[in-house]
Amino acid sequence: TASASSADGIRRSSHIASGSNKMTGTPGSQDSEEAKASGCATLPHNPQTERLCNKTSICSRSYFLLVMVFFHVYLINVIALLFYVHYSSGQDDDSLSHDAPGTDHSRINSRGASSKVEYQRDFSLPRVEGIRVGHVQKVSLTPGKSHHMRTLSLKPLLFEIPEFLSEDECHVVMQLAQLKGLMESQLMIQEDHEELVKELNLSPEEIFNLLDINQDGQLQHTEVISAFRDGIWLTPDTLREIYAGLKADKNGDGLLSLEEFRLLSNDAFQRFLQQQGVKRSQLVRNSRHTWLYQGEGAHKVLQDIKERVIQLTRLPPAIVDLSEPLQVVRYEEGGHYHGHHDSGPVYPETACTHTRLAANTSTPFETSCRYITVLFYLNSVEGGGETAFPVADNRTYDEVCLIQNDVDLLDTRKNCDKSNLRVTPTKGTAVFWYNYLSDGKGWVGEQDEYALHGGCVVTHGTKWVANKWINIDPDYQRQARYQQLVSQPQDKNNEIKNQNVCN
Amino acid sequence: TASASSADGIRRSSHIASGSNKMTGTPGSQDSEEAKASGCATLPHNPQTERLCNKTSICSRSYFLLVMVFFHVYLINVIALLFYVHYSSGQDDDSLSHDAPGTDHSRINSRGASSKVEYQRDFSLPRVEGIRVGHVQKVSLTPGKSHHMRTLSLKPLLFEIPEFLSEDECHVVMQLAQLKGLMESQLMIQEDHEELVKELNLSPEEIFNLLDINQDGQLQHTEVISAFRDGIWLTPDTLREIYAGLKADKNGDGLLSLEEFRLLSNDAFQRFLQQQGVKRSQLVRNSRHTWLYQGEGAHKVLQDIKERVIQLTRLPPAIVDLSEPLQVVRYEEGGHYHGHHDSGPVYPETACTHTRLAANTSTPFETSCRYITVLFYLNSVEGGGETAFPVADNRTYDEVCLIQNDVDLLDTRKNCDKSNLRVTPTKGTAVFWYNYLSDGKGWVGEQDEYALHGGCVVTHGTKWVANKWINIDPDYQRQARYQQLVSQPQDKNNEIKNQNVCN
Repeated sequence: TASASSADGIRRSSHIASGSNKMTGTPGSQDSEEAKASGCATLPHNPQTERLCNKTSICSRSYFLLVMVFFHVYLINVIALLFYVHYSSGQDDDSLSHDAPGTDHSRINSRGASSKVEYQRDFSLPRVEGIRVGHVQKVSLTPGKSHHMRTLSLKPLLFEIPEFLSEDECHVVMQLAQLKGLMESQLMIQEDHEELVKELNLSPEEIFNLLDINQDGQLQHTEVISAFRDGIWLTPDTLREIYAGLKADKNGDGLLSLEEFRLLSNDAFQRFLQQQGVKRSQLVRNSRHTWLYQGEGAHKVLQDIKERVIQLTRLPPAIVDLSEPLQVVRYEEGGHYHGHHDSGPVYPETACTHTRLAANTSTPFETSCRYITVLFYLNSVEGGGETAFPVADNRTYDEVCLIQNDVDLLDTRKNCDKSNLRVTPTKGTAVFWYNYLSDGKGWVGEQDEYALHGGCVVTHGTKWVANKWINIDPDYQRQARYQQLVSQPQDKNNEIKNQNVCN
Repeated sequence: TASASSADGIRRSSHIASGSNKMTGTPGSQDSEEAKASGCATLPHNPQTERLCNKTSICSRSYFLLVMVFFHVYLINVIALLFYVHYSSGQDDDSLSHDAPGTDHSRINSRGASSKVEYQRDFSLPRVEGIRVGHVQKVSLTPGKSHHMRTLSLKPLLFEIPEFLSEDECHVVMQLAQLKGLMESQLMIQEDHEELVKELNLSPEEIFNLLDINQDGQLQHTEVISAFRDGIWLTPDTLREIYAGLKADKNGDGLLSLEEFRLLSNDAFQRFLQQQGVKRSQLVRNSRHTWLYQGEGAHKVLQDIKERVIQLTRLPPAIVDLSEPLQVVRYEEGGHYHGHHDSGPVYPETACTHTRLAANTSTPFETSCRYITVLFYLNSVEGGGETAFPVADNRTYDEVCLIQNDVDLLDTRKNCDKSNLRVTPTKGTAVFWYNYLSDGKGWVGEQDEYALHGGCVVTHGTKWVANKWINIDPDYQRQARYQQLVSQPQDKNNEIKNQNVCN
């Protein structure tokens, strides 16, 4: 009975096929049959037809013109439909890349001219398949050359492409960055934290309660460390020094009780460290960087890199064009960047930096919404400088477990060897990963916590890298509105920009 | 310059949009303009038109008929094209399931009638997206009801769907199985191993060398256990008993040297255990099962389940129809199924059981090519009976590490609590997973080793489950040839079947 049933299944589908054949195949014959019934044929130049049509003189010049008009209308409609098929079907079709939200007016259901416009999405963001760790796929990034892309991890979805940049290209990017000048990636004093605490208006009891993750009424080292790592990197050792210096831990049990905590001001730790004198090696980020624009008029190498990133990620060019410029970073010997996320979680009340202009809302929460990070190694480092992914492909992610006992997986000066995955910098190699998951409906979803990474300390020589971040708002409406806004014709552009800036 | 370049990108795509607008939007006006030029309008019932047309009498009955014929031809063509769009685009489209290889003749490039036919594939096997562990997506399996599908793991890609079967359906399936009668899933004596060893014609030295994974010249317990688990389940304890009974380990160091190994016959271990008397609990699999066909004429509940599996997996109905029947399994108290893969790795020389007929080759290596396992819990078990996935979402897979010291992760009588993931049987719930990865080109790829699983020992009551395996050959040509073969018109079917059986 199993084979009988399958035959049925096949019969059913072939029935549909013949059904659609009927649609395309029979009109011709139907046509001529109806034409015969009315005593008239459709082709005016058939001699027999001419004889038949003598009485009604429908073979006149105007009749012929009319037939031709119909014929042309018909042809144009068929062509239009074929265009529609071409531009609406097939994921693999390169033409999809033109379907950036907000660029194709025929797809946008504009209900008004203001912020009430609602955008319909019949487009899926492509996402490269990882298959399994170690899987290698060929990709075509430049005409006449193919690259090999290897899957390094699935959580985050992370790939490595050797020889993405040529030696010359690496050289040009480093020179352009030096020409522009690099600035400190992080200043010694950060004032945002203090201000944010004031703005939130929390009592010491409330702050204590939030910090006390395991709710045992005491603050362990790990509970204090991650909370007060604002600019200056805390370790269990420095924390012990601070407690001793501030006489914070009265009973000397290594824990802070609410009473002990109440005696400290919000910025006591950071202020104490600054008074002691902070070394660059104590910062979260110890590097210098600059930004290089990649748009029209930019150096050919920079534009080429952008084009290759579009090919690599298969994203609509408009999205890549509207993303952050290329960031070039230099780490001197001793440089590092402790474990971090390139982009944070996005809740409904979180704004994206790049679409903020179009979002028309004010919220204290903002993140950069970097959907993808493409990291280029511009040189091979003599010693150290690996990119570490501490929890890549871990079975579970638990923020609390990142700092256990005296092992802090985020510390790239000490514990890179304990990371699940380390990429060694090789000149010209690119790695790229997704900082967000898919939402399962073809758009950007939740933050991928496994994308946590850092730059291990450079033990010998200098390390040069570049970052290309691709910014996409997980809120499709905001992304579409933003792209619509920046794609206004040049003459209207200024008006609209002014309107929004003044709001 | 970045925004200027992006504007350029948008201008380019909007140019295409306006181009296609021209196609669909302007024919109407072009039409009437041309019509005016020829002194004739297209609508015969407009009074003004009638006046204009008096001279040429193109408003006669036959002319009207002709216009209507054109209009109908045009309409039919538009409908046909829309059908084409509907049936050829969109992954999420249910109609895709009709595009089974070998069922749609228009997609197959048949170059001959024999085995030299080559099938072109412009169809991708759908694969459900997991997103992340815990992700819940709504699925529509039966009209008027929606189910929730939760991602349980990504390696393997594993989902759980509560209430997939109703209580009544579970009841019917169990009764149908009992009516048909269940047989022992595994006999006490297995003879395949002995025969395979003879066929391969290996010397004791060669076998010793293959077993000695770490190449230290000695066989550790773990090296012996996994190799000789043929029917009867070996544990470190039973191995010690065997060594003692056979006096195999002369020097009593717990290891087998080549000299000690040479003195043993190939089936010495299994024969010793059989002489001692084997208990059911010592078998790899301790259950009874039967097979229920789901094709035409089968019980409505069985056909309904098949239809729901098609909806769930989004696979072409022909593939599901041509897969194995439904397997119903009963575990009594004390029943278990130790860790195993439902389907093995597929190398070029490996045949798939289901396409073997069409493969026209002979090879000693064969596997069942079960792309997907759908497992239904027909009752809630009083105690035990979980489905365990020992290495689900592990960062790495290492077969050797499955048995370490005295902990054997494959032993579902002892170590289910050490599995990464356990699913508790709940009446009506279905779980399904992929035993193979994607090949990255829209077809079946390599075996997913993380799909290793087993049935934990039932501590209280009876456990009833059903398995639906979906068989797909990772070799697309073989799968297409097989489907082509079984989809031959009924009258030719017997001839071809006979031909192949006689080959």
